Amino acid sequence: MAFAEEKKICFERISMDLRYGENPHEASFVYGAPAFDVLHEGKQLSFNNILDAEAAWIVASNLSRIGGGAVVVKHQNPCGAAYLVPGRTRVECVNLAIQADAESSYGGILATSFPINREIAESLKNYLEVIVAPDFEEEAVRVLSKKKVRLIQPRDYIPFNGKLAFGSLLISERKFEGIPELIFGQPYDINEILFSLIVAEGVKSNAIIIVRDGVTVGIGGGQPSRKRAAWIAVTLAGEKARGAIACSDAFFPFTDSLEVLIDAGVRCVVAPLGSIRDQEVLEYAQKAGISFYKSPIRVFRH
Amino acid sequence: MAFAEEKKICFERISMDLRYGENPHEASFVYGAPAFDVLHEGKQLSFNNILDAEAAWIVASNLSRIGGGAVVVKHQNPCGAAYLVPGRTRVECVNLAIQADAESSYGGILATSFPINREIAESLKNYLEVIVAPDFEEEAVRVLSKKKVRLIQPRDYIPFNGKLAFGSLLISERKFEGIPELIFGQPYDINEILFSLIVAEGVKSNAIIIVRDGVTVGIGGGQPSRKRAAWIAVTLAGEKARGAIACSDAFFPFTDSLEVLIDAGVRCVVAPLGSIRDQEVLEYAQKAGISFYKSPIRVFRH
Repeated sequence: MAFAEEKKICFERISMDLRYGENPHEASFVYGAPAFDVLHEGKQLSFNNILDAEAAWIVASNLSRIGGGAVVVKHQNPCGAAYLVPGRTRVECVNLAIQADAESSYGGILATSFPINREIAESLKNYLEVIVAPDFEEEAVRVLSKKKVRLIQPRDYIPFNGKLAFGSLLISERKFEGIPELIFGQPYDINEILFSLIVAEGVKSNAIIIVRDGVTVGIGGGQPSRKRAAWIAVTLAGEKARGAIACSDAFFPFTDSLEVLIDAGVRCVVAPLGSIRDQEVLEYAQKAGISFYKSPIRVFRH
Repeated sequence: MAFAEEKKICFERISMDLRYGENPHEASFVYGAPAFDVLHEGKQLSFNNILDAEAAWIVASNLSRIGGGAVVVKHQNPCGAAYLVPGRTRVECVNLAIQADAESSYGGILATSFPINREIAESLKNYLEVIVAPDFEEEAVRVLSKKKVRLIQPRDYIPFNGKLAFGSLLISERKFEGIPELIFGQPYDINEILFSLIVAEGVKSNAIIIVRDGVTVGIGGGQPSRKRAAWIAVTLAGEKARGAIACSDAFFPFTDSLEVLIDAGVRCVVAPLGSIRDQEVLEYAQKAGISFYKSPIRVFRH
């Protein structure tokens, strides 16, 4: 549906049985058929599965901009992602995304920008709730059909953010656009910079993403303060933060989060500008000798 | 709208100008008039403001079950809350909710279950984006109208969780019901137990909430792992975790998160059961000598 143009939108209730809604004591209702085909349903699709699947699919689709990649989502948030850096195979890419946060990937939703073939299917050892991909080879479906996983193949559609609030339906476009621009410091691989921003676009609430060698090493999010998201990201990254790239979904309101990142060894930062303290933030980064890429977009997801 | 009963639902686009959607480069569209009155709009309402306002309002409404209270929301997640324990005034309650996480409350959305009077209005020193309340005294509106805040008074409506995914609209009921039941250990004030669960109901993704003396002291959420949410909650609570109550939005799949809570000094835990390791989890809690309340509901919010 092209919401932008419609004066009135109508949804027909469809008879999709999701057992329950967000929780077992809450009923669910589906209006309008979701734009996907279910190739295998080893276990009945749930309300949360569909929302997770879309969250993963949008990030995976955006990874096509840098040659393709894979992402694992938990609770509508990416917990690990990797892209096809030169020389990396698709099998390696998928498993790097899963291993990026192996603990969290268990029971996660995997989405890839490329088709799932037999080799990828056979390499998947972790329990996954859903796999979303633009295509599945017949042999891959056969291999995966032995598992409890659901296989989802999206059809063409335009994704929108839409939520009910106070009985009304609020809709926002969801767009990834533009290329980050180097403000100062040594240049980094632009695909690696874009990778950090594509993942940040999918992470909720004060996202701080640390990436290294085409894989996420620390994803901080879900926090009411940016400094806390930075603290989570560097704690998860540990030593891997040294020399890494960090992306912030929105501008740095203060230097505090930047300080957390730089102290952990981050050497390149990607973030939009727009804070009243931009000057102070940029000077802080420049004095620390790191590179600063200006993101063309703020990528809040709440 | 009573979604549950409708075979077909239609929304008329309304001419509510929100400037932009979730981000400045994303356009927004509002379908159906939100069920609230705006008493003051010191700054134009945004897409995110409305979603935050509802997130706060639902938690504040649920606090009526225990005599009323206040909550501050950031990015659709509570960051601080307090309720009217005996002897606590409404002014104290509001300011305890704000001070519970003073750093995060700046620019937050405040919702109360009770009307805002002049005394409360005059006590608000922090910058708040929105205040949501069932009523505002005329004098309170006059005081607050000098600020950039938006004042929102909800009308009667039934809240539902509803999100777009793959072009369809997925709707779930949103219901708080039941009373946690003591499984073992010494009993705690049931209102304090309910308070922890009401706040957990509003926090996204692996919520762990630590409460003490009718105020939240540590809110952990937005994580792909429950153990990580527990780590955030106890880190924020610090010494205040000693002797406190902790609530988990869903069952403990392993003993690891429980261990984090108990090591930090938590003495009472509220969580639903349903894990295949329930027995192991309960034995672990019992051996540690803490109290365990079984929550009647799982309260995922993603």
